[in-house]
Amino acid sequence: MGKITGVSPFAPSVLVKLPPIEGVAFATAEAGIRYKKRTDLLLAVLDEGTSVAGVLTQSKTASAPVLLCRKNLKKGSARALVVNSGNANAFTGKRGREAVDITVEHAVEAVGCKPHDVFVASTGVIGEPLDAAKFAHLLADLAESVEADAFEAAARAIMTTDTYPKLATRKAVIGGTEVTINGFCKGAGMIAPDMATMLCFIFTDAAVPADVLQDLVGAHVKTTFNCMTVDGDTSTSDTCLVFATGSAAERGQKPVTKAKSKKLKPFSDALHDLMRDLAIQVAKDGEGLSKFVTFEVEGAKSWEAARAIALACANSPILKTAIAGEDPNWGRVVMAVGKSGQAADRDKLTIWFGPHCVARDGERAPDYDESTAAAYMKNREIVIRIAVGVGKASATVWTCDLTHDYVSINADYRS
Amino acid sequence: MGKITGVSPFAPSVLVKLPPIEGVAFATAEAGIRYKKRTDLLLAVLDEGTSVAGVLTQSKTASAPVLLCRKNLKKGSARALVVNSGNANAFTGKRGREAVDITVEHAVEAVGCKPHDVFVASTGVIGEPLDAAKFAHLLADLAESVEADAFEAAARAIMTTDTYPKLATRKAVIGGTEVTINGFCKGAGMIAPDMATMLCFIFTDAAVPADVLQDLVGAHVKTTFNCMTVDGDTSTSDTCLVFATGSAAERGQKPVTKAKSKKLKPFSDALHDLMRDLAIQVAKDGEGLSKFVTFEVEGAKSWEAARAIALACANSPILKTAIAGEDPNWGRVVMAVGKSGQAADRDKLTIWFGPHCVARDGERAPDYDESTAAAYMKNREIVIRIAVGVGKASATVWTCDLTHDYVSINADYRS
Repeated sequence: MGKITGVSPFAPSVLVKLPPIEGVAFATAEAGIRYKKRTDLLLAVLDEGTSVAGVLTQSKTASAPVLLCRKNLKKGSARALVVNSGNANAFTGKRGREAVDITVEHAVEAVGCKPHDVFVASTGVIGEPLDAAKFAHLLADLAESVEADAFEAAARAIMTTDTYPKLATRKAVIGGTEVTINGFCKGAGMIAPDMATMLCFIFTDAAVPADVLQDLVGAHVKTTFNCMTVDGDTSTSDTCLVFATGSAAERGQKPVTKAKSKKLKPFSDALHDLMRDLAIQVAKDGEGLSKFVTFEVEGAKSWEAARAIALACANSPILKTAIAGEDPNWGRVVMAVGKSGQAADRDKLTIWFGPHCVARDGERAPDYDESTAAAYMKNREIVIRIAVGVGKASATVWTCDLTHDYVSINADYRS
Repeated sequence: MGKITGVSPFAPSVLVKLPPIEGVAFATAEAGIRYKKRTDLLLAVLDEGTSVAGVLTQSKTASAPVLLCRKNLKKGSARALVVNSGNANAFTGKRGREAVDITVEHAVEAVGCKPHDVFVASTGVIGEPLDAAKFAHLLADLAESVEADAFEAAARAIMTTDTYPKLATRKAVIGGTEVTINGFCKGAGMIAPDMATMLCFIFTDAAVPADVLQDLVGAHVKTTFNCMTVDGDTSTSDTCLVFATGSAAERGQKPVTKAKSKKLKPFSDALHDLMRDLAIQVAKDGEGLSKFVTFEVEGAKSWEAARAIALACANSPILKTAIAGEDPNWGRVVMAVGKSGQAADRDKLTIWFGPHCVARDGERAPDYDESTAAAYMKNREIVIRIAVGVGKASATVWTCDLTHDYVSINADYRS
């Protein structure tokens, strides 16, 4: 780990408490994979009948665990999730696949399930062989000691350069029955769309078939994790899995068969809201950040175009460093809009920094006042709104600034 | 200007001396547009009969001077070039266009030419109205005092955050007659393809018609300036213009009519070599850099794919900071290849840091030695070669590392 000079200014003073979910239990261990004196291994055990859906990295150099998840998602059922931190088991060739195989074998034995019910995720250094022998033997004991009320411990075991665990919980009602959705995730650097989260695990007691769950998570990832970026660097390991134990059916939850059914809308909305919450928490723990930044683009030709413009801003090193320097350098917003390649009418372009219009109709706003804009930049949360004047679509992207601490953390990550 | 902690380690101890070119003369002035006590205004006067070609930024928010150049390039003739530093005259609306008009008017009068023979370029802060009245009146005096032997002074007048002027010269023979090509350029931040250079001006005494010159510069920009990046941020002002006075015709140079003619090949090669030289000089003066980095990608499906993979590496903040930290973190190269979206065979991927193979066939090289790789990273010039194993095409991209000084310079650019 690099020289982390402190925790994110957005680290919550009190962590949200996640209620237990029937059919989900966790155990963690200190396997010493890379880190010392902290947990780095997580086992989640899921009741029989748990459905699963997920979205995985689009990277062409995806990790061995990602390939396993991609395969097992096709079956749609889950009984065990094994996650390690400290080593991504990415670009580890044949040995990487063997490490996954060994992990699955031990999980199958520990939990008593089929191989296709096991999901594996790894996060940490890329290219270092992962020695599964270091931790696979621990899974049997872990399976004996799982607890339902252990979401925070689970979230802590999967952290890498994160400065706080990211947790969220929501309630929703499906046809008269209340269900719970809990989620946690990790990620601080090498964070960009195409599954932006690195690792995110969501659990619910709702009874939702895998194909319906897949429709929901597939749609919601687009406007949550894939609208968040720290450094534009897409990880080899990005994984977002949603597990639905279905225990709410025993409490009377009626079956659902379609993602678009009216009955499922409150659940879908709550799931979206939870994913958005977690995505924002990742941006708020971006490596070395001092500010959380929201780019809101409107007046674009399509949602895709609006998102592309917002991402061009959110991934611009020269704009992100200006924000770190509390410089209201809106000229760099103009640059980023221009380089996005998306349609924009330069002579209608209007930009706001918070409530202050800094540029209107293609030039500096007539009443622009540098000191007002500079004062706004002292805020810890910055909202930059951009109207591009060619259509009606809008999109929002969350990110953070680019600071000296980002350089410090990443210049020395492995040393 | 930001806190620049020093000059680039690649600043030449002795600047290359550019010989005069018949038909080209320069004058510079301290107009006080933004900087104090340094030149910030350049006038180049070109003999009658000078042809011109060029490539301009693809930005959707291109500056007013870029729009003028785009229009005047269609006529293909040039008599005057006016460049100012300190203000980009970009995103300045109607006033921006007026500033260009005023500049052209004064240049027409000073040089005695047609409006379409005047080319204008501006570089510096975006969004600040440029007051042409500050300098347009100086052009008449400048036109009286132009000198042929003034390339270095010209290059200095157009600098912004550059720590040294970038100059290059080549000789070539066209059908038995020797011609000279001189060029200079500026650029240190907000540098990325789609004309990467910000501003580059090239002058030759060769007699080459505008359409032939356009074919050459269009082709050569692709593999020179557009294969160079500092921060992935495409400027609103990128301009590369080539002026050919044709005075070599008086010394017997035979006319040329086709870019592909055999007679023109030595000239074309020399022009390419000069553009490559200048592009590398820009990367070597990247804001805050400590290392110059070359990414060589081979085994790709096409040149475009190879370039896209090399650029994904060269624009990755997390990889560039690792290089700044002298960390041989080749896992981040794997990540960047993966995020490029281009075809690559993960299990054939092979990576070299200088002469050292660090990864072979999709995993860490069997004889990988961390201390050897770490020792290599102490070099000031780093070459990273990547074989992606799916084809025969290759491409090279030049960049620099991402350091604390980049953050310092850009956090405080306007303060």
